[in-house]
Amino acid sequence: MKEKGHNHEQHHVLALDIGGTLTKIGMVTQRGDVLQTAVFPTGATEDFTHFLGQVGSVFDSWRAGGQYQPLAMGIGAPNASHQTGTMETPPNFRWGPHVPLRESLCRLWDLPAFLTNDANAAALGELHYGVGRGMRDFVTLTLGTGLGSGIISHGRLLTGSHGMAGEIGHINVYPDGRQCNCGLKGCLETYASVTGIRRTVFELIARGGTHSVLSKYSFEALDGKTISRAALDGDPVALEAFAYTGKILGLKMADTAAHLDPEAFIISGGLSQAGDLLLEPVRQSMESRLFTAYREKVRVLLSRHRSEEAVLGPAALAWEGLGIEVP
Amino acid sequence: MKEKGHNHEQHHVLALDIGGTLTKIGMVTQRGDVLQTAVFPTGATEDFTHFLGQVGSVFDSWRAGGQYQPLAMGIGAPNASHQTGTMETPPNFRWGPHVPLRESLCRLWDLPAFLTNDANAAALGELHYGVGRGMRDFVTLTLGTGLGSGIISHGRLLTGSHGMAGEIGHINVYPDGRQCNCGLKGCLETYASVTGIRRTVFELIARGGTHSVLSKYSFEALDGKTISRAALDGDPVALEAFAYTGKILGLKMADTAAHLDPEAFIISGGLSQAGDLLLEPVRQSMESRLFTAYREKVRVLLSRHRSEEAVLGPAALAWEGLGIEVP
Repeated sequence: MKEKGHNHEQHHVLALDIGGTLTKIGMVTQRGDVLQTAVFPTGATEDFTHFLGQVGSVFDSWRAGGQYQPLAMGIGAPNASHQTGTMETPPNFRWGPHVPLRESLCRLWDLPAFLTNDANAAALGELHYGVGRGMRDFVTLTLGTGLGSGIISHGRLLTGSHGMAGEIGHINVYPDGRQCNCGLKGCLETYASVTGIRRTVFELIARGGTHSVLSKYSFEALDGKTISRAALDGDPVALEAFAYTGKILGLKMADTAAHLDPEAFIISGGLSQAGDLLLEPVRQSMESRLFTAYREKVRVLLSRHRSEEAVLGPAALAWEGLGIEVP
Repeated sequence: MKEKGHNHEQHHVLALDIGGTLTKIGMVTQRGDVLQTAVFPTGATEDFTHFLGQVGSVFDSWRAGGQYQPLAMGIGAPNASHQTGTMETPPNFRWGPHVPLRESLCRLWDLPAFLTNDANAAALGELHYGVGRGMRDFVTLTLGTGLGSGIISHGRLLTGSHGMAGEIGHINVYPDGRQCNCGLKGCLETYASVTGIRRTVFELIARGGTHSVLSKYSFEALDGKTISRAALDGDPVALEAFAYTGKILGLKMADTAAHLDPEAFIISGGLSQAGDLLLEPVRQSMESRLFTAYREKVRVLLSRHRSEEAVLGPAALAWEGLGIEVP
């Protein structure tokens, strides 16, 4: 029945990318065409029911139109486990310790639903629809509110023994380093993320000694784009913040390479929009710390997915879950 | 022809474990019975031809007996690549940058030969014959002259894009830390290995302030067993050396867990003979740094393989290479 009136290319899935800041919902075809999208603030620090209300409104309006019959739902969310269907103690959220995400969303639209970590979903998106097509071993790093990571090994998502692999944002930079929302100290994401670079900017301003346009901004008002723009204009604090962020990230990427021997890192998220401002210190720092066997062999690439295409990851998860190859 | 006179259980492979200090050769059945072994100093700082001479003598004497018809040869060696058949710039060896190991050994006994990193071979040994049987996701750490590691993910060896994955010994502890033989500074194996703990003992003695029986030993004469024995006798320097080693190793194992979400770490090698002296600080330190999702879920186990059973890893590699399941 679902195929009536649709040709093969128009089969589609419902895909949700739930980020610390924004939630994106899309209808995505097998080829990765995004037929329709909706974006709204996730409300991570509000009630979970508030979030469900927002998702419900989008679902209702899309169903009311009648033109969509999605085959499945793919969901990417922070700390989500495909084994339990829940978000497990997501550090930047106040939705409780075990958020019954899959079950709650299925109640809003009754479909076969597949859930994974948002960053794992992003890795599947790169594998099937992005820069990772044709590669078998790579690591994605999403530098947004936090640092999400997904590992593709032997051409498939590395999930680990509890479905929770790929938390590179929580490897340690300094044992007594910055306080992380996860409760630990010195986690990589407290340095290498949009939030991390904002903290670095504030540290540099606090240290003093240089004039910076960024001293006009409150912590809440300061975003990644503002820091990038200031760096491109030659602001010394912004430039130093990118150099410091890139150096730390590059050092830790060398450690990741020593585990996985990846062909490439694929970088996405708000901070990646800074391009070479970030990538140059990253590449230099990573290369300086790479074990001999990997030197000059690991590429650092930018994701080509635009922000609104974050739904491609959850969509790829849904197609994989259905056992349907993407073209 | 090879099966004449043998029943199924007696099929066997020739297995070589080439370590920084010792080389072990064995004839190993499918069930993991070691029919015969030979052990000799590897001579890593002498000529490669000297090593080949020693292997050749063992092969000659075993062939002369006439009772063995191995189906294949499995070889584990530091920095060995299954893709090229060579050892690539092995840090603790002076055999040149690209050692043509597979080709050279095949000239000594003409058999289908399978080569991998010694530590990857150890991981296969644990998967098929050891503590890892029945697990699908674990990491082996071999604490010997250096720190070797092998990663089993989704029930198979994680090899990476160039066959060189699993070099956890070369992740960074301190950016300006101890000089490693690989050329980098602060690599984990300069702390967490037999050589590493010897360096720690010497640092502690140099710092002064406590009497230690270990001050009687030269660096060359000091071995892991001596340090373990001193620790068991309550020697303060030896005890502090184990505490320090375990703390650093545990912190870094938490980072590895954040990549791979393993069910367990399986620890082997000379330093592992210290048992709880090492494992207690390791477990405590790892647990203190584990990301929430992994807490109290990652086991730290000792390998049950005795030192002479190091050939089980290369043997498992050979059976995998032949496509023959071990029972």
